[in-house]
Amino acid sequence: MGPFSRLICFESEVRSGPKYFADLGVEASAIPEPGTSIQAYSSFDDLLQGKDQVTATVGKLLSPLPREDLPIYSVGLNYRSHAKEAKLNVPVNPPVWTKPAAALAAPGEDIHMSRYCASNFPDWEGELVFVTSKECRDVSPEEAGSYILGYTIGNDLSCRVFQLPAQNGGQFFYAKAFDKFAPIGPVLISPEIFQQNKEVKIVTKINGQVMQDGDIKKDMVFSPAQVLSFMSQSTTIPAYTAVMTGTPAGVGAFKTPRRFLNHEDVVDIQVTGIGVLRNRILFPEGRQAVL
Amino acid sequence: MGPFSRLICFESEVRSGPKYFADLGVEASAIPEPGTSIQAYSSFDDLLQGKDQVTATVGKLLSPLPREDLPIYSVGLNYRSHAKEAKLNVPVNPPVWTKPAAALAAPGEDIHMSRYCASNFPDWEGELVFVTSKECRDVSPEEAGSYILGYTIGNDLSCRVFQLPAQNGGQFFYAKAFDKFAPIGPVLISPEIFQQNKEVKIVTKINGQVMQDGDIKKDMVFSPAQVLSFMSQSTTIPAYTAVMTGTPAGVGAFKTPRRFLNHEDVVDIQVTGIGVLRNRILFPEGRQAVL
Repeated sequence: MGPFSRLICFESEVRSGPKYFADLGVEASAIPEPGTSIQAYSSFDDLLQGKDQVTATVGKLLSPLPREDLPIYSVGLNYRSHAKEAKLNVPVNPPVWTKPAAALAAPGEDIHMSRYCASNFPDWEGELVFVTSKECRDVSPEEAGSYILGYTIGNDLSCRVFQLPAQNGGQFFYAKAFDKFAPIGPVLISPEIFQQNKEVKIVTKINGQVMQDGDIKKDMVFSPAQVLSFMSQSTTIPAYTAVMTGTPAGVGAFKTPRRFLNHEDVVDIQVTGIGVLRNRILFPEGRQAVL
Repeated sequence: MGPFSRLICFESEVRSGPKYFADLGVEASAIPEPGTSIQAYSSFDDLLQGKDQVTATVGKLLSPLPREDLPIYSVGLNYRSHAKEAKLNVPVNPPVWTKPAAALAAPGEDIHMSRYCASNFPDWEGELVFVTSKECRDVSPEEAGSYILGYTIGNDLSCRVFQLPAQNGGQFFYAKAFDKFAPIGPVLISPEIFQQNKEVKIVTKINGQVMQDGDIKKDMVFSPAQVLSFMSQSTTIPAYTAVMTGTPAGVGAFKTPRRFLNHEDVVDIQVTGIGVLRNRILFPEGRQAVL
């Protein structure tokens, strides 16, 4: 068994308190509300070393990541259904790139989009995220599973204008690199618990309306272990790297009519056995009339 | 004037000594040989704060970067001559992506390529590199120049197989992300000194033979300030971010016949007013017979 079952991370005060990690245990249970006092570790290292817990009052929930200063990997075209709606071929290898560390956003956090982002067709991508447990390089697909610390949920927010080849030479990085364009959370579940689910669904809702409804086990092209193995060939992958593993069909750019994110949209991304990542989108000048 | 004219960074012992920064002064001069004792700062902060220098013996030269733990930005298709040889259109905006921090290699360092890299068509890209001086976000092209700490030289090493769309969905990141695929150095020169050159040439030689011979002022599409401004829109760019600004015509993949890097190739990249970045390429099993 790994060092935790269901990991959350939080600040003890709403703005500037210290950071804690707590294990919610094997059984699925609600995330503690702000103001609740729980047993928690003062750092992820304390958890790994089995040090004593302290009593902490939950403030703002944070992404359940031992490190927040690393680039976040993204994988493209990793669901057959999404490659089909994008009219793109699934390549031989998983297309990978990164999002900057400053793109990280917390579960429940309001995403304040700039006018620049709001006006360039911001879109959702509900994704399964895995986090690595130790530094690795040249791991085989068979070994790679043992380098996965756990699984959580991410939203690979993307301004679609900047994904057009004429805009950016076909490189997806820029469209997805804006500050707070990588909400991740709310809970990191251990591989053992994740693997208990026979079926793993990923469902994205905007204001309660289902937009993406994917089946991770049936539709995903490259498994997390295959992705990590490929990433690590001749390349050192730091411990605690988060990897967004791609999105199924149902992004706004391929809806008829197209549907992009707008002021006060609430995005819920649910993955079987993990929970729901919820973020609200806010525009600087209120609702966009025409998109 | 900025805080330095010509900055180098070095270890005092060949393997594990502390790290020093030294300013070689306004006049172009040779990089001190290993074993030379010079006046240097114990950290880049010491230099900024004008603290006393210490006497240090030059060991291994390092990349002249105040931080080595940040992703390195890359720019694609930023010379008209290279876009033409690649038969690609210059996009509306500079195509940007990153190389991981672990890709950084020192000036003069031997690049030990894995079998995986050696057999997947490794190629050179001589590039002008700029480094940012402070954190920035939403800077205009007019302001961006004042966020540039200095200029140096880089080699955006690339395994061409992985740049084929069928391999990786058109994303350039993976082909260029391998460990030690970003040699940078040897000296960081201040913007004031860089701007004194009326003509800035960038010349890449393999074993003394000229492969790339570009004119940065005439051939570059987006200037460093334009690139930094674009990168910073709605995106926090950390202080001391290094940006490789693209390569001119003459990469190996577009030579007739094609010419890729091989065992014991010595790559020299020279930029007017900066100097020469030299790295030797080593393959694990000696010379590759057929590429």
